[in-house]
This record gives sequence, structure tokens and C-alpha cells, in this order.
Amino acid sequence: MQSDTIAAISTALGEGAIGIVRLSGEEAISIADKMYKGKDALAEVASHSIVYGHIIDRTTEELIEEAMVSVMRAPRTFTREDVVEINCHGGLLSVNRVLQLALKNGARLAEPGEFTKRAFLNGRIDLSQAEGVMDLIRAKTDQAMNVALKQVEGRLSTKVQVLRQALLETVAHVEVNIDYPEYDAETMTHALLREKAEFVKNEIDKLLRTAAQGKILREGLSTVIIGRPNVGKSSLLNSLVHENKAIVTDIPGTTRDVIEEYVNVRGVPLRLVDTAGIRETEDIVERIGVERSRQVLKEADLILLVLNYGEELSPEDRALFEAVAGMNVIVIVNKTDLPRKINMEEVRELAEKEQLVTTSLLHDEGVDQLEQAIAELFFGGGIESGDMTYVSNSRHIALLEQAKATITDALDGIEADVPIDIVQIDITRTWELLGEIIGESVQESLIDQLFSQFCLGK
Amino acid sequence: MQSDTIAAISTALGEGAIGIVRLSGEEAISIADKMYKGKDALAEVASHSIVYGHIIDRTTEELIEEAMVSVMRAPRTFTREDVVEINCHGGLLSVNRVLQLALKNGARLAEPGEFTKRAFLNGRIDLSQAEGVMDLIRAKTDQAMNVALKQVEGRLSTKVQVLRQALLETVAHVEVNIDYPEYDAETMTHALLREKAEFVKNEIDKLLRTAAQGKILREGLSTVIIGRPNVGKSSLLNSLVHENKAIVTDIPGTTRDVIEEYVNVRGVPLRLVDTAGIRETEDIVERIGVERSRQVLKEADLILLVLNYGEELSPEDRALFEAVAGMNVIVIVNKTDLPRKINMEEVRELAEKEQLVTTSLLHDEGVDQLEQAIAELFFGGGIESGDMTYVSNSRHIALLEQAKATITDALDGIEADVPIDIVQIDITRTWELLGEIIGESVQESLIDQLFSQFCLGK
Repeated sequence: MQSDTIAAISTALGEGAIGIVRLSGEEAISIADKMYKGKDALAEVASHSIVYGHIIDRTTEELIEEAMVSVMRAPRTFTREDVVEINCHGGLLSVNRVLQLALKNGARLAEPGEFTKRAFLNGRIDLSQAEGVMDLIRAKTDQAMNVALKQVEGRLSTKVQVLRQALLETVAHVEVNIDYPEYDAETMTHALLREKAEFVKNEIDKLLRTAAQGKILREGLSTVIIGRPNVGKSSLLNSLVHENKAIVTDIPGTTRDVIEEYVNVRGVPLRLVDTAGIRETEDIVERIGVERSRQVLKEADLILLVLNYGEELSPEDRALFEAVAGMNVIVIVNKTDLPRKINMEEVRELAEKEQLVTTSLLHDEGVDQLEQAIAELFFGGGIESGDMTYVSNSRHIALLEQAKATITDALDGIEADVPIDIVQIDITRTWELLGEIIGESVQESLIDQLFSQFCLGK
Repeated sequence: MQSDTIAAISTALGEGAIGIVRLSGEEAISIADKMYKGKDALAEVASHSIVYGHIIDRTTEELIEEAMVSVMRAPRTFTREDVVEINCHGGLLSVNRVLQLALKNGARLAEPGEFTKRAFLNGRIDLSQAEGVMDLIRAKTDQAMNVALKQVEGRLSTKVQVLRQALLETVAHVEVNIDYPEYDAETMTHALLREKAEFVKNEIDKLLRTAAQGKILREGLSTVIIGRPNVGKSSLLNSLVHENKAIVTDIPGTTRDVIEEYVNVRGVPLRLVDTAGIRETEDIVERIGVERSRQVLKEADLILLVLNYGEELSPEDRALFEAVAGMNVIVIVNKTDLPRKINMEEVRELAEKEQLVTTSLLHDEGVDQLEQAIAELFFGGGIESGDMTYVSNSRHIALLEQAKATITDALDGIEADVPIDIVQIDITRTWELLGEIIGESVQESLIDQLFSQFCLGK
């Protein structure tokens, strides 16, 4: 089943200089040959070479494109299958015509992520590496990319495999003891078990400690700017977007109304929610309604609450403080260029432990301090760089949490002198859970679901 | 100067499976080698081969990407220079990091169109072929793509060259007569001149006859839908967009408000203007003001005027007929599902020679007829397919018009027995004008300007 030949457009859709249609599978080269006209047939050219030619619809002899065609034979390819990449002039239509022709000649349209899925199923990469590939494509900051790149390189896989190996050895050791009880004192097995289980638990703990930051790096901090009209919300937005590179993403499947903007604040990716709303009406509450606003606030990772230095605190301001109680809030007192009317004492009281920053966005003052405050709130002022292996994927985090629970159960059992074959159940379960991270002992339905979140052509 | 090495992202920007950074120039391979780590140095690998490796920042030893690198040595390349293409995981950030690294290692950021410009300057393609490359990328319909593809293949160039050759031979013949007047009777030269000049004029005429259609195929018909509120303008829009593949383009440099939507109606690309306006307010006039509306109407190639079958003609309807007098209009009487109140006699009178279509968009009736009417209005019911060489580019059309004028002057001169060395001036001028189409005798500033309209990375 897997060996049918798939095809998809592998470059981003849009006007570009080059667009690629990629084929993978047993028939990749023969299908490509049906639509290629060049000096030699593709079947004749050396592996990993590029040839110039024309893409032709043989049924009509119509010229479809001028192309450079790459031929890569299994197994040294992305999927470990034969791969052909047709590089054509990058128009939307042009690439699409070549894809249609490939389908007409016997290829099947690839499902999202199917190339990477094949790389996984054919054993070239494990599941966490495959997930890293997708993260790499979606990365919004350098740090997020580094996290993903390390995952693609197999850093997390290696760590997980070390832990699994340790558990496996323990289980094997216990088996030996069960089979040949005369060989070993039970106390010694207990000691060994405890030692190994503690090692595994500690390592899982270390990984989980990177999870909070890793997840932020991967997904961005959902950030909402609130404040009464005319306090400077859209100036704040513009200043964040202006100072940092912004990536605007239309959320697929929704109308143009919902827009997310990513800005990179000292390596922390902020996902600014409903910025269109802020830009257009200056009032998120008014625009999306009070109920939905509360929901948006509840789901936010960071709330920037803006007050006006040149006005007294109003009941609405106080209500906003109430609405965001218990969340990650940074209070921004803006417009310090105006004569002060706000009661800073009261602001400090209301802000309690929240960070407090004063700005004059008009004069570009205080933005540095704000960015510093954001970085400190989530990363203690900086991001561990270099060699950290971050866990960033929610699926991995959930599995690590479960593995931590089962290994803790095992440790409790050891302490309580539970019979070893019972403890072993928890240890085996931990081994299985860790295996799911790298895609061993994972159900097929889960695999399908995971890869379906990938982009087309990967 | 041209031999410095340029680099750019050559795939469309966005999330894709593959992103390409392209380098071209003398140092392309050595610069790529500074950032590449694989089995062999790129300088060692065979031309037109693809190798797997890592992209590394050697100053920090930081891993930047995993990549497949294509090495293509001059002269069998797009630019006729050494070309290296670094294919990496297709995220925006990822591709950008690789580009930055290439710049750090000595490449210069390519200007828009600079790769194609080098292909032109190095003599691989002529100017009209280069322009075809860009049209290919921007093509919105199959027909537009075929026109562009033929231009890339050099069809127009060949035709132009045949004409120039004919003119050149004539000039040479005249020169001989001037230098050796004793060899030839003046009358015979006149006869030859007339014959050749008429041949060239006829051929130019033929090309110009394809221009109207060619330009539409290339640029799309700027189409405006007008009508009173509630006559069904946005149903019409949706129906056109729904039945045909729509390509939405944000116009660069403008706010999100101005949106163009392309729909392909039987091969005729309609560029629907200000569709956002229609969708949101159902009234273009109300939204953009009467003055700007008149401007929009004036610039439109096609106006779809919608009336309501279930209401009497109003003074506003009649005013709309006046506003669009003399333009390409199709009158659509919509809502034939309602009991008729409109006076069809009067509509027919107002419409005069305009096409008239009745529809019930609610029941999806009449859309076929409307599409037929559009196709007939511009292409006499169909598009010449197959082997036509269309002239589609405004620059080419303008040059052909000028060439037609000068060759006509030459013919007039021949008729009036003007001295041959005077006639020759017009013939030489025609030869020069035709040369500008393919980029001979073109000023450098014009070349710079033409290529600057290209997209980055091409």
C-alpha cells in the first residue's frame, strides 16, 4: 500500500521564482518520464543529478513547462523511496499544471505530511524527529527554530532512548532474578531498581522543566492588549510590531477578520490576538462582545493592561484589574508625556505583584523596559541558549508527565517492598510511554492524525 | 561588475515543505562551501548534482539547517553563471537564516529579477523571453500561461527576428545601390523596397491584431459590478467566484482593503475590482464615494450592470445606464424568480447594443449565459487556441505600434518617390524599434527598470 507513488507541490503557494512538484514512490521516475522530454530519459540519468528539459502532456503534445528535474534514487532520499523533484517557474498556475499532469500520469495526490510520514514509516526518522520537521517549518523565532532543529537532529530521541535502554536493562535484570532466584539477593535487585528508577525519574524531571519555555518557544505566547479607548493600545501594538519583525498569519478556515500577528520580543514569540480588532476599533471589548472578550482573556498567556498617565483611574480601569486577576499581567502606564493625573500609588496597589512599566509611546520611551519585563516574566530575563534540549510539543509533554507518574508509582512500590513483578509492570509502562514519544508502540490512528496536521507537500 | 555573486530566496514566501536559497556568480560555489558541511566539498562534486549536508555558521559552529544542495556549473545554468541552490526545510525563518548566512559569507542580495537579468545580459535569453518568464509566474489562467510559455520559448522573438532580417536585407540592398548606382535600375529597388516593407507591415498588423486578446489574457479584464443595493451584486460575485477558481491577490503596498479577485471565465481572466467593498457594504458607490466610483468605472474593461427583475426601473438604474454609456457593459436582469415588475421593453431600449442576460442567481440560473456573453464580448465566443503567437505585453504593443507607423511612413515615401536614402531612415528606425522588443538597442536604464518589476529570487 505504501509503495504507491505520491505527488504534491512542495513549495509555498504564491508567486515565487521557483516552484517544486515532488514525487515519491516506486513509480516516481517512470511517471516523471511520461511527462518529461530532455536529452536522456530520467530512468537513464545518474542518481542525485539534475537535468534540464520540458514537461509535456503526451496526450496532446502540449508544452506544459520548462523545468529542471532532480532525480534521487532510494534509499538516500527524504522518504527512502525514489524521489523526483520537478523545479518549474514558480507561478501558482504553472506548478499546479505540472502537479495535475503528474496525477494524470498515475501519481496519487499526497496527503498532508505524507512525505514525512513515509520517511518515518521507512525508518529514516522517528516520530519526534518528524514532528520537529513540522515545527521547523512553522518556527516563528530563531530560538523556536533551534529547538525544532535539535529535535530533527534527534537530540530528544537520543535522550529518550537512553532512558528506555536503562529501563530495559532493569527489566532484563529483574527477569533474570525471577527466573534464577538463587543467583541474587532480593535486596540487591531492589537497590538496583531504585537506582535506575530514580535516574529515569530525575531525567524526566529535567526534561519537563524545559517544557514550559519550550512550549512558549514553539507556540508563542498568546498575548492580549487591553485598556480603555484612547490609552494607546494601538500605539503599543504598532510599537511592538514596528520594533520587532512581525509575521502576519491568516488563520486558515476563518474569515479575514481573525488575524494573528507574531512579534519576536527578545526571542519570546508573542502571538498578538485580534490585532485587527485593536487596529480598527481600538476596542476589543466593544468589537467582539463582553462574553467573548472574557474567553479571549482566559485563554491568554500574557495580558498587557494599558492605563493613561494623564487621566485619573476610572471604574473601568479598576474593573479590568479585576478581570485579569490571577493571570500573567504586565501593567503599562502610558502617556507619561502628559501631566500626571493618575494616582500611581493606587496603580501600584492594584498591580500588586504584577510588573509595572511606564511608557511614553509617543516619544518611543519605555518600550525597552516593557520588552525586558516580558522576557523576565517568562524566561527569567533570558533564554537558555546553546545546548539545551527543550521539550516543546504538547504530545511529548503529556507523555513525559504520564511516564513520570508511572515511574513514581514504581519507586513508591519499591519503597513499600511491593513484589518485584508488580513493580515491573510500572517500569514496563514507563518504557512504553517513552516509546510513544519516538513513535514506537504508537497506534496507527494516532500516526495518521499526527501527520495530517502537516502541511501539504512535506 | 556583473560577476559578483548574488543570492536570494527563490521560492514563494510562506510555509512550504521546501524553500530554496539560490546563489549565482563566480563565487557561488566557494561561498556555498563556506557554509556547507557534507561528505565532499561542493567544489569537488560533479556539475548538476545534488548532495545532502548541513548548513553551518562557521563563526559560531552553529547548525543552521539540514539541506540538499544543488551545484550547477556555468554555462548550462539559468544565468549562464555558476549556480548553487540550497534546498532547505521550507519555513520562512529557516530559509531566511540560510540567506543571511550566504550574505555574511560574501554574496550580495539579488535585486528583483536579477537572476533573469543575468540570463539576458549573458545572452541566454532575449528581453521578450525574459518578460515571458515573469508573465509565466504571474499567469492567472491556462491561456495566459500558454501565451507566456510561447514567449519564453522565443516564438515572438523568432517572428521579430524574421522581420528584422527582412529589413536588414533591404537596407543592405539599398546600400549596394547607393554605392554602385550603375548596377541597378532605381525602379527595381523601389519595387523590392515596397514588397519587403509591405510584408513587414502586414506581419506587424497580424501581431497587433492579437494584442487586444493577448493583453486581456495577460492582465485580466478589470471588471466592476454595479447596481442598486439589494439587486444581487454580491450573489453575482459569489457565483462567479464559486463556479470558477478564484485567486485572491493582496495588492502590494496597499492596505488590506484593496483586494483583487481573479476568476477564470471560460479562459477569460476577470479581475474583479474592489470585491471587498461589494462583499462588505453591497454598495461600491456608497463605500468609495461617487468621484472615485466614476474613476473606477472609467478604468474598467468590463462593467456588469445588475438590475432587479422584481422591481420597477428606478431613476438610479437609469443614471447607471448613463454613467456607463460607451463602455463594455453586460446588463444582467436578476431575480427572475420574483414576479416581474421591471419593464423589459425599457431595459432593452436602455441597453441598446449591450448584451442582456436574465438570471436567477438564487436558483443558479443564467450564469452559463452570462459567462457565454463575457466570452463572446471579448473573444467572439472563444479563444484562439493552439499555435497563435499572442502579443500581450504593453511595452511590445507600443513598440509594434511605433514600428507600424515608421514602416507606413516608409511605404508612403516609396509611393511618393522620395529619394531612397530618406526612405531608408524610416526602415532603419523600424528595424531599431523591433529590436527593442527583444532587447537589442535598448537603453540600460530601461533594462534596469524592466527587471525591477520582477519578483525577488527570479
